[in-house]
Amino acid sequence: MAGPTVGTVARGRAAGVLGDAGVSAARRARIDIMRRVDERLDAFLGAERRRWAAVDGRGAVPVDAVTSLVAAGGKRLRPAFCVAGFLSAGGDPADGRVVDSAAGVELVHTGALIHDDVLDASELRRGTPTVHVEQARGHEERGWLGEPRRYGEGVAIISGVLATVYADRLTRDLPPAARDIWGEMLTEIQIGQFLDMAVAAEGVVEPDLLRWVAICKSGRYSIHRPLVLGAALAGRGDLAPAFEEYGETLGEAFQLRDDLIGVFGDSGAAGKPVGLDLEQHKMTLLLAEAAQRDGVVRELISAREWDTARILERLGESRELIERRIAGLVERACGAIDRAELDIAWRTELTEMAYEVAYRNR
Amino acid sequence: MAGPTVGTVARGRAAGVLGDAGVSAARRARIDIMRRVDERLDAFLGAERRRWAAVDGRGAVPVDAVTSLVAAGGKRLRPAFCVAGFLSAGGDPADGRVVDSAAGVELVHTGALIHDDVLDASELRRGTPTVHVEQARGHEERGWLGEPRRYGEGVAIISGVLATVYADRLTRDLPPAARDIWGEMLTEIQIGQFLDMAVAAEGVVEPDLLRWVAICKSGRYSIHRPLVLGAALAGRGDLAPAFEEYGETLGEAFQLRDDLIGVFGDSGAAGKPVGLDLEQHKMTLLLAEAAQRDGVVRELISAREWDTARILERLGESRELIERRIAGLVERACGAIDRAELDIAWRTELTEMAYEVAYRNR
Repeated sequence: MAGPTVGTVARGRAAGVLGDAGVSAARRARIDIMRRVDERLDAFLGAERRRWAAVDGRGAVPVDAVTSLVAAGGKRLRPAFCVAGFLSAGGDPADGRVVDSAAGVELVHTGALIHDDVLDASELRRGTPTVHVEQARGHEERGWLGEPRRYGEGVAIISGVLATVYADRLTRDLPPAARDIWGEMLTEIQIGQFLDMAVAAEGVVEPDLLRWVAICKSGRYSIHRPLVLGAALAGRGDLAPAFEEYGETLGEAFQLRDDLIGVFGDSGAAGKPVGLDLEQHKMTLLLAEAAQRDGVVRELISAREWDTARILERLGESRELIERRIAGLVERACGAIDRAELDIAWRTELTEMAYEVAYRNR
Repeated sequence: MAGPTVGTVARGRAAGVLGDAGVSAARRARIDIMRRVDERLDAFLGAERRRWAAVDGRGAVPVDAVTSLVAAGGKRLRPAFCVAGFLSAGGDPADGRVVDSAAGVELVHTGALIHDDVLDASELRRGTPTVHVEQARGHEERGWLGEPRRYGEGVAIISGVLATVYADRLTRDLPPAARDIWGEMLTEIQIGQFLDMAVAAEGVVEPDLLRWVAICKSGRYSIHRPLVLGAALAGRGDLAPAFEEYGETLGEAFQLRDDLIGVFGDSGAAGKPVGLDLEQHKMTLLLAEAAQRDGVVRELISAREWDTARILERLGESRELIERRIAGLVERACGAIDRAELDIAWRTELTEMAYEVAYRNR
C-alpha cells in the first residue's frame, strides 16, 4: 500500500509561490536547491513510512498525516528564505546541510499548522480537511471505541510532534550558532501559539501585546529566522542585523497580506474559508494594527460577541492605509538588503522575493 | 511573581526512586550527577520562565506547566539510566553533556506524559490534576471565551511540545552517534503512542502487536535508550548489545511492575487512581502478556464493554506467574551486565538498579 508522497505534488513546482519567472543565476541556484529539499522530504518521509508500515499497517498513519500536509501545495516560503540566506551568504550549494535545514524548517511549520488547527478548531487547511477532523471522521465512520474527537485530536497531537521530531533529526548536523537560532525559533513558535490562544480566550485588547503576539507567532519564523539560520550555516553571522531588519519588516508585510487574504481574499486560492478568522474571534496582525490606530475597532473587538459585519466594514475602509503600510514595510526591507554586504545578484533576488511575498494572492 | 521550581521539590531527593541507600563510589558518582541534572533543569526552566514572563505575565504559563510536572516527584528513572550508561562506559563526570542529556531525557518524558494524559483523558498525574484538566478548569472558573476543554487541551499540546523543544535545545551538542539514538528514541515514542491509541480504538486483540506496542511506547525509552545514549556519549558504542539486552528485559520488568501497581497497587504512592487503566480500556503490557497466554483474558478484552471485575480476578490469579516472569527478566538483565566489558563496581551498581526498578512500590 503506497502512501502519499511529497514529490508527486511538489516536484516541478519546487519554488512554490516564489515562482520561477526570474531566470537569474541566483534564482536558478535557489530553485535547484529547493528541488533537492522536496526530494529530501520525499525520501526521508518515504523511508519512515516504509519502516513503520512494516511493523504494522497502522504505523504509517501519523507519517502519512505529515506527508499529506507537506505535499498539499504549501508555499515553501520558509525553506525558500533559508536557502536564500545560505546562498546569499556565500554558502556552498553542494553542502547538504542547507537542504536538510530547509526541509527541517518546512517540517517545523507543518507540525505547527497541524497543532494550530486543533487549537483553532479549523476544518480546512490547504483545501483539504485538517488532520484532526479527517481522523475523527474516520473513527466515527468505522464505529471505533471511544470518542471520535479525542481520537482525531490525538492523531493530530502525535503527527504534529512527529513532524517536529523529524525536523530535529534532519538538522542534527547544524553548527552551534545555527542550532541556537533553531532552538530560539522553535521556542518562540510555542510561546507565540500559547499567547495567541490566551489573548483570544481572555479577550485581551492591548494593541501592543496583540501586535507582539502576531509577529512572534508567525511573522518571525516565516522569514527572519529561516534567513538568519541559512546565513549562520554559511558562517556569516555578521549578516544577522541586516537580515533581522529585512526579515522582521517583510514578515510583517507577509502577515498583513495573509490576513488581508483571510478577510477579503479568494477562499479557493487560500485553501480555507474566507472570513473564518473574524467568525472565530481570531486575533490577526491586521486586526491588532487596526486596533492600535482605530478606537472603534478596539471597541468592536472588546465586545464578547463580535459584530463581524461592522469590523469587516471598518477594515475595508482602511484597506488603502494597510496597502500603504505594506508598501512602506517592503521598502524598509529592501533598504536593509541594499545596505548589507551582499553580492549584487543576491540583493536583486532578495528584493524580488520581498515583492513576491508582499504581493501574492494566496 | 515566582513560579514553581524543580529544586524546591527535587533537591535532596535527587536520586529519586533509586534512592541513595547504597554508598558505593559508583552510586555516589551517579547521585552527584543526578543532583546537577536537577540543578540544570531548574536553571534552564527558571531562565525560560523569567524571559517569557518579562514579555507578558501569561508567557510563563506553558513553562510553569512543564516545570510543575518535572518537579512533582517523578522517579528520574530515565536520567538515572542515562547517567549510569555514561559513567559505566568510562565517561568523564566533568563532561557537562551528560548532565544536559539526562535533563533532556527527563524533559522528553515530561512532554510525552502531558500529551499522553490528553490522549487518555486522565485527570490525575503524580497526585495533582493533569495540565489539560487544570487549565480547562481555570478557563471555566474565569469565564473566559471559547470552550474550556479546547483551551485546556491547547495548553497541554503546547506545553508538551515546549518540553520536547527544551530537550532538543539541551542536547544540541551531542556527538552524531548519540544524536542518532536520540532521534530514534523520540520517533519511537510518537509511533508507540499512536499505535497504543489505535489498538485501543479499534479494539485490537493481537497479543504480539499489543506486546510490541507496550514495549515500544514506554519500556524502551525508560531504560534501553537512555542507557545506550549515555554509553554513546562516552564513546562506547560497543556496549550497545549488552545494554540493549539489559535495557529491553529490565524495561519489560519495569513496565510489568508499573502495570501491577496500576491495577493492584496503592494509589497514593502511584499518584493516580488504581484500577483506572482497566476502566479506561487501556492496553497495558500486563494485559497484553496475559492475553498472550490466557484465552479467557483474550476473550474478555475482545468484548466491547470490559468486565473489569472478571479481568481483575483473572489477573489476580496469575500474579504469582507475573512475579516469576519479572524475576526471570531481572535475571536475564543482570546476566547481560555480567557478561559485558564493564568495571566490577558498575556491574554491581547496574545490578542493584535492576532490583530497585523491578521491585519498587510506586
